[in-house]
Amino acid sequence: MPAASPAVKTPPGPAGTAPPPGAPLDSLLAPWLRGRRRSLLRRLVNAGTRPGVLSLAGGLPAVELFPAEAYGRILKDLLESPGSVQYGGRCGELRERVVELARRRGVSCATDRVLVTTGAQQALDVLVRSFVAPRDAVALERFTYTGFREALAPLSPRLVTLPSSLGGGLDVEALERRLRLGARPKLLYVIPDGHNPLGVSLPLESRRRLVALAHEYDFVIVEDDPYGLLCCDGEFDPPLAALDAERVLYVGSLSKVLAPALRLGWARVPARLAEALAAVKEMGDLECSRLTMLAAARLLGELDFDRRLRDLRSVYRERRDAMLEALAERLPGGCSFSRPGGGMFVWVELPPGVDGEGLLERALGEFGVVFVPAAAFADARDRAAPANGARLSFSGAGPAALREAVARFAAALDG
Amino acid sequence: MPAASPAVKTPPGPAGTAPPPGAPLDSLLAPWLRGRRRSLLRRLVNAGTRPGVLSLAGGLPAVELFPAEAYGRILKDLLESPGSVQYGGRCGELRERVVELARRRGVSCATDRVLVTTGAQQALDVLVRSFVAPRDAVALERFTYTGFREALAPLSPRLVTLPSSLGGGLDVEALERRLRLGARPKLLYVIPDGHNPLGVSLPLESRRRLVALAHEYDFVIVEDDPYGLLCCDGEFDPPLAALDAERVLYVGSLSKVLAPALRLGWARVPARLAEALAAVKEMGDLECSRLTMLAAARLLGELDFDRRLRDLRSVYRERRDAMLEALAERLPGGCSFSRPGGGMFVWVELPPGVDGEGLLERALGEFGVVFVPAAAFADARDRAAPANGARLSFSGAGPAALREAVARFAAALDG
Repeated sequence: MPAASPAVKTPPGPAGTAPPPGAPLDSLLAPWLRGRRRSLLRRLVNAGTRPGVLSLAGGLPAVELFPAEAYGRILKDLLESPGSVQYGGRCGELRERVVELARRRGVSCATDRVLVTTGAQQALDVLVRSFVAPRDAVALERFTYTGFREALAPLSPRLVTLPSSLGGGLDVEALERRLRLGARPKLLYVIPDGHNPLGVSLPLESRRRLVALAHEYDFVIVEDDPYGLLCCDGEFDPPLAALDAERVLYVGSLSKVLAPALRLGWARVPARLAEALAAVKEMGDLECSRLTMLAAARLLGELDFDRRLRDLRSVYRERRDAMLEALAERLPGGCSFSRPGGGMFVWVELPPGVDGEGLLERALGEFGVVFVPAAAFADARDRAAPANGARLSFSGAGPAALREAVARFAAALDG
Repeated sequence: MPAASPAVKTPPGPAGTAPPPGAPLDSLLAPWLRGRRRSLLRRLVNAGTRPGVLSLAGGLPAVELFPAEAYGRILKDLLESPGSVQYGGRCGELRERVVELARRRGVSCATDRVLVTTGAQQALDVLVRSFVAPRDAVALERFTYTGFREALAPLSPRLVTLPSSLGGGLDVEALERRLRLGARPKLLYVIPDGHNPLGVSLPLESRRRLVALAHEYDFVIVEDDPYGLLCCDGEFDPPLAALDAERVLYVGSLSKVLAPALRLGWARVPARLAEALAAVKEMGDLECSRLTMLAAARLLGELDFDRRLRDLRSVYRERRDAMLEALAERLPGGCSFSRPGGGMFVWVELPPGVDGEGLLERALGEFGVVFVPAAAFADARDRAAPANGARLSFSGAGPAALREAVARFAAALDG
């Protein structure tokens, strides 16, 4: 393999202007932020929008299935009442709809336990700010959702980094060993189904064991379940939140079942802590849009949601199958990949010695395809994290485009 | 949503067990959050929506002037393209409109310096997280915007608490004395016009002096200017950000010139730090709603904004005048109050010994009117903060309702 030069540079454009003469403010930045760069993943999502480039990078929902006309009609109705664009605090209607969504995953959740947030990302941020003090320990997988890692950054926690496998997800035995050896995480982060970036589901036995360990070693579990309703082959196992009503802080999202631009997510939090956690949400952005909350609640109320789920699942199944077939057909020897039961991502383990970032540079520069290399999902200081991985998303393009994108990816790998 | 049977397998085994008695999660909360309560102000805003109660509590914009029909039409148009509900990162169109808004305040700001945020509150939160490390010192007024105080809470900073007067706002000489005596704030928070809660404007000379002190003592200024365009008696003085291009981190909002439910605000940040601060915004909620950003940009592009501002100013002028007249007429002796040049608030200094919270209890219970007592705007540990103050908002009701509300307020004070 050719030597991997740093794959992605600062995007062209306004960044990189000369430092102002005089006294820059850099020295006043909080220490955790000094020298920190924007996430590789976010920059890649932008690269994927260039003409001619096929993107397997972003986890983009199939927004063409969004009931836009119904949503527009609902918005128009709501706008006839000025109160719908006013400040308004919480939205009982939406909480009730969220309770119903949770029930579809077997998660019981009274309305007073629903914290509506600005996308699931804010729920993660709120939970981290609420439970993690500076230099606390946090347990998470070696490769995991970058947004959770970013929410941790200001607190500079000690990381209890756990291995995962494409077969069984998070290695619960490894966690148990760490706990026995004295690791005392305050919080464990887990994505039970459609894992981002690995595209795996956690076996039921592992879910049970994690809950038991949380009790035994007194930590909370943040369970991030944006893909739990987007299963392709029959229902996923119940999430951890269905196995424990209190210690599992469950995070859901409307971005994947409705649309990202609603910016609505939610968390099931302990009733006794609901007011305290609402205050943490408020310090972030006061409240969610009253107009959007009301509109989302009405849309969920009038939609045939069973049918919508069937449609979404069928579209994603077709896309996933197209990608898995193309990978099986095109990938050179020495690769393996996950076979997700749903969600949006497939993880490709590249042959040993192939660097994901170097591959990305070639794939983007010469073959017109982008994906997200393993390094984007690991802690920057984690030298043990293997670089030979790639996350490919199948959610945002049709089968033909996916086949072409996979062909380009494989060609870059061959080339 | 039609009732659907739970679409998950019944969790086998010890599933759905009750929360373990005697093991609440409170002890796992981050220390800063333990025992913390929801802000008094937010609770009052809710009380103000009870039937029969007149509210002078919330700073509610006159949403009946929002161009709802145009906004609905724009949303409908945008919804014809699925991309408008997708993830999409930043929105160049909106940044350009923000640059124009800033120019109206004499603030020059290239598009690459605009950080669009989920309301101005998120801008405050991002700036605090970016510049304040735990136990840093932060300078702010004794009575100031609660949302800024809340954004500080997780960092438990040392507070350099400054007095203000109803005549001249923040006491810059007091700040200077503190600096000379060794206080070293990392950041100073200031609201130049339509001060929340005091309803005062900072004299131009104080603005100049604050900027000079920021250079001399090497701190950043967070200038919160949601009301800067809502002047009633001719334009306000230029904000601090017009006097210094780098060290003043200027925060603007669309909540007051358009509508709160857009949840859009922005900050002018140094170009060299724009990427770093964008990453802090992203850790909070990934991005703002693409649909809303595009719609706000179009609305600002097609509105006759001069005319809208004239209309808004004229409505608020009428309301402010009604309130000031009613106060002059009704308030018992021993009170004084601010005479705001704009914004949404009047501060009433109650006679010595009158406790704002006690007055509120009587006002709500017996007279059917709510306002926000002084204590809500002070640090809970600040024993020197006088309790004999009340913030009355004139923005959210017509002159007749304001006169009635002030009459009730005065009656409670008499009673």
